[in-house]
Amino acid sequence: MPDESVFDFKGYLKTKREMVDRALRGIFPAPEGLSADVVDAMTYSLFAGGKRLRPILCIAGAETVGGSGAAVLPVACALECIHTYSLIHDDLPVMDDDDLRRGKPTSHKVYGEALALLAGDGLLTEAFDIMTRPELIRGLPAERLLRAIHIIAHASGFNGMVGGQVVDIQMEGRTADLTTVDFIHRHKTGALITAAIVSGAVLGGGSEEDEAALEFYGLKIGMAFQISDDILDIEGDREIMGKPVGSDEARQKMTYPALLGLEEARRVEEGLVDDAVEALARFDSSAEPLRHLAAYIIQRKK
Amino acid sequence: MPDESVFDFKGYLKTKREMVDRALRGIFPAPEGLSADVVDAMTYSLFAGGKRLRPILCIAGAETVGGSGAAVLPVACALECIHTYSLIHDDLPVMDDDDLRRGKPTSHKVYGEALALLAGDGLLTEAFDIMTRPELIRGLPAERLLRAIHIIAHASGFNGMVGGQVVDIQMEGRTADLTTVDFIHRHKTGALITAAIVSGAVLGGGSEEDEAALEFYGLKIGMAFQISDDILDIEGDREIMGKPVGSDEARQKMTYPALLGLEEARRVEEGLVDDAVEALARFDSSAEPLRHLAAYIIQRKK
Repeated sequence: MPDESVFDFKGYLKTKREMVDRALRGIFPAPEGLSADVVDAMTYSLFAGGKRLRPILCIAGAETVGGSGAAVLPVACALECIHTYSLIHDDLPVMDDDDLRRGKPTSHKVYGEALALLAGDGLLTEAFDIMTRPELIRGLPAERLLRAIHIIAHASGFNGMVGGQVVDIQMEGRTADLTTVDFIHRHKTGALITAAIVSGAVLGGGSEEDEAALEFYGLKIGMAFQISDDILDIEGDREIMGKPVGSDEARQKMTYPALLGLEEARRVEEGLVDDAVEALARFDSSAEPLRHLAAYIIQRKK
Repeated sequence: MPDESVFDFKGYLKTKREMVDRALRGIFPAPEGLSADVVDAMTYSLFAGGKRLRPILCIAGAETVGGSGAAVLPVACALECIHTYSLIHDDLPVMDDDDLRRGKPTSHKVYGEALALLAGDGLLTEAFDIMTRPELIRGLPAERLLRAIHIIAHASGFNGMVGGQVVDIQMEGRTADLTTVDFIHRHKTGALITAAIVSGAVLGGGSEEDEAALEFYGLKIGMAFQISDDILDIEGDREIMGKPVGSDEARQKMTYPALLGLEEARRVEEGLVDDAVEALARFDSSAEPLRHLAAYIIQRKK
């Protein structure tokens, strides 16, 4: 376990989150004109209290390999747009039909289904607009940026997040085995988390070996993150989750704790974090944020 | 009016359409694995008989400024993915609620609403995956490609297509003036059509003046295209449209012909095509396809 006295992890999280929030505020102007409503809906969800985990992982990925965290901010912001779009669409009545998210009414509850759908579409598109906007990307080499965009797009589409969500909704109410649950986690959550770290490393100028190590790290914490979420759904309190506890069970979603029991799920989770931290052995103190992040991800309940 | 005897426009359209279709088939593999259903839904709509107008405009844009049409194929294919995603989402019950598109059942009629929504998300994301896929973009300079992606993303999001769709659904059943109808056309249809041509010109290495001329051309034919669509909706036959005639009127959508009458709408349409062709004066025979395309766009009913 990393030593809190050496590295101020809470301060790190706060600083980076504020950095991302400032950048996002700068990118999203106040809604105006005929299509103001959709911009309003986009910013409502974007500023609904997200932890900015993916942007922070991208920044940490860049800094771990010796790159600049500030330079990757447009990509970090884009990752948050993609994450937020996926939440808006997942919450729609035709998908998970959730009324609450982070303790606030979901997009379609506030803006109606049509506008929520379009706000999601708008955020997904905006992600790629931001990552290619001339005034934002001056500090980033074009070839590296194209690679980073590809990693993120690939992880977001049918090979990643969209593919995971498809299987997730198709399995609802049916019995899934561990292989299927694994597939869903890896694609729905793990892919974008991994892409966040690896795209940061690519933009930061990391070597192939750096990228491989951080990809391994990302896969492990992505999986740990999802299992932790499922455990929280069972035992977490409503305040931390911002949504009703036990909703997975009510929906008969297959999860690690449901399949393996709480204790075994927690053991798996801890093993994943250990593996993730081990993969960082090649990095010096520059990887300290990622070491702490791995532990943080499964300790959110504390 | 361009002389058909000099330039085989029909042959041109056919060749380019086949070129795009081959490229799209190569990009979309047969669905396999757990998320096969969403790939199936994506390809269903992608190969439902589209005219490939946006890809052809991109190729023509590149060739007009002396660039290679084959080199821009990944971007051309991406434009068709974005166009197709927008149709799938527009057809959803929560939006226009259309059962037929190009004479075939719409995506949600075949796959259900959840999968249709995800197929749209998948296609939009895939567009950016394709435009940055290393094996597809070898022939394109990275800086130009980033500019082209930005033009396309910007035209697809809340500043373009998504913004137009928002106003379109909000105005349904309400009285819109010409300014609002103009806004909807310009954003919902015009933006991506213009982006298709301009991105082609950027990738083909056109000068700033070339880009400006082609942007003007794009704005004019984009508008003409939408007015032509609205006229077809009133007087076209169901076979050409692939959807019920008179659906705009039934839905009380405000359109040019509804606001100005058929005859005046046709005059506006022809004026737009004349303006578009005039903007091509700086180009030699390389712009012949675009000259024919301008006329073709408003003559689809013949």
